[in-house]
Amino acid sequence: MNEIKIFSPATVANISCGFDCLGLAINDLGDTMVFTKTDDQKVSIKEITGANLPYDIHKNAASAVALAMLQKHPADFGLEVSIHKGFEPGSGLGSSAASAAGAAFAVNELLDKPFSQLELTKFAMLGEQVACGSPIADNVAAAIHGGFILVQQYDPLKIIKLPVPSELEVVAIHPQVTVKTKDAREVLPQNVPLADAVIQWANVGGLISGLYTNDYEVIANSLEDLIVEPARKHLIPHFDLVKEAAIRGGALNAGISGSGPTIFALCKGSETAKNVFKNINEVYANTGIDFTMVHSKINTQGVTILEKN
Amino acid sequence: MNEIKIFSPATVANISCGFDCLGLAINDLGDTMVFTKTDDQKVSIKEITGANLPYDIHKNAASAVALAMLQKHPADFGLEVSIHKGFEPGSGLGSSAASAAGAAFAVNELLDKPFSQLELTKFAMLGEQVACGSPIADNVAAAIHGGFILVQQYDPLKIIKLPVPSELEVVAIHPQVTVKTKDAREVLPQNVPLADAVIQWANVGGLISGLYTNDYEVIANSLEDLIVEPARKHLIPHFDLVKEAAIRGGALNAGISGSGPTIFALCKGSETAKNVFKNINEVYANTGIDFTMVHSKINTQGVTILEKN
Repeated sequence: MNEIKIFSPATVANISCGFDCLGLAINDLGDTMVFTKTDDQKVSIKEITGANLPYDIHKNAASAVALAMLQKHPADFGLEVSIHKGFEPGSGLGSSAASAAGAAFAVNELLDKPFSQLELTKFAMLGEQVACGSPIADNVAAAIHGGFILVQQYDPLKIIKLPVPSELEVVAIHPQVTVKTKDAREVLPQNVPLADAVIQWANVGGLISGLYTNDYEVIANSLEDLIVEPARKHLIPHFDLVKEAAIRGGALNAGISGSGPTIFALCKGSETAKNVFKNINEVYANTGIDFTMVHSKINTQGVTILEKN
Repeated sequence: MNEIKIFSPATVANISCGFDCLGLAINDLGDTMVFTKTDDQKVSIKEITGANLPYDIHKNAASAVALAMLQKHPADFGLEVSIHKGFEPGSGLGSSAASAAGAAFAVNELLDKPFSQLELTKFAMLGEQVACGSPIADNVAAAIHGGFILVQQYDPLKIIKLPVPSELEVVAIHPQVTVKTKDAREVLPQNVPLADAVIQWANVGGLISGLYTNDYEVIANSLEDLIVEPARKHLIPHFDLVKEAAIRGGALNAGISGSGPTIFALCKGSETAKNVFKNINEVYANTGIDFTMVHSKINTQGVTILEKN
């Protein structure tokens, strides 16, 4: 194989009660990336479209991942990378994670698959480190594995792929405002009441049980976040309005995607999701803030191959 | 039916990471109780063996539950209750819960089953309120439903029955010391670091996933308690010694049952559980503190009928 073109999905992390441990992949939103072997044993970025991202190979998440992989598994070729962003960085939908996970997957293919999915997740985490300053696992793990994932443990890293009820769909709105990751981190409480933590982990338990049993009522009931959402939602204009519109439309619930500003809603079935999309679209159109929206099934495959030569 | 004799299991609550929300029922330890219809429309306690518990029908967990049920669902008969405790109150194995759950189940049978399992759990919680001052759900829900249960939510009460991997067994040691529930509550931190709470809820997620997938490695890896065990273990003499002996014997992990002093260990398979039992027995025999032990499968049925006439 000389060249591979892949699709790497956008992802929702911090799913309500599952702050810093639960993520899911979105089927119809993500990056397209092309990795081409070169003769010079170097990594270079040929083209980036759709976003203003660094061409410096040590600062770009995708090339940084490629470099780390070639260092660990030396090859007799170099790589030229083209990145076509399908959604904006800073959205809270795992932009750097999509690039990092896409690179990990594609380079592994070009190397004849020496690495496991867990190892690919670790390489992709290096891309997160480069792009965001922190080797966060939830977005990259969701992009690589697809579906719903649980980062059960960081040291050593343990990722659990959870089942996805077949009718589960996601609606997301990305208001065109900036939420700095630093600000989103700073508003978090350092300590939380034990009583709230208990409610939160009982909800994590409920959500995961609901995913295994296709119990949408349990999922809806567990999609509550007592801790992070109340601290962060004021960073996102009209968060409550969107959440109310989503629930009124029949969503299981809604929450902050990653550290925002994107707000996601989980829905049972396409009709409900369309209704939720319409409701959110209508209320946000009146706010005067530009926004984009997506309605999609959950991606269950992770990064996928579009072409190879 | 004029009389019913039931077995109500002992239970482990606060299963490691699942403080205040996860419980399980022990198959081979519990109370035997007999409920006999009388003509006088009163509730009375005929006999209590195996423990020194109140005969005052408003202060005894079992009779308090029976009274509440007859108030909600009036009958043309009264009840005489005999309670044969199979394990000691104050052990941390849900003694009052066994009595309360047993009463809820038995009275429901004598009334021709007007109440659901959820309603029975709520009645049994009244027994916990009477006996312990707090309407805790985890022990009574485990005793009524059997198996592993998650108290997903208190208001309104939502109980989820989780699957039990078939080889899962429990070993428990009850050192003959007193841990007052008040003391066990007072040592708890009111606030916990968010970072620790995240680790804890990722472990709750892992444990529940492991139960659904029969993945003993994931279960073992998730049976960690960063928050409550460190705060409480000094109330239990030689806790670390027991935990080490359990793990050395091959246990998935060990933790504090309820608010102690009982220490439980979960094991994969009978041989391992026997080994763990032997290890713990040996190390505790040298401490000079009296103790009792149990080795049992997980009870998956909840309260069971032994006889009815």
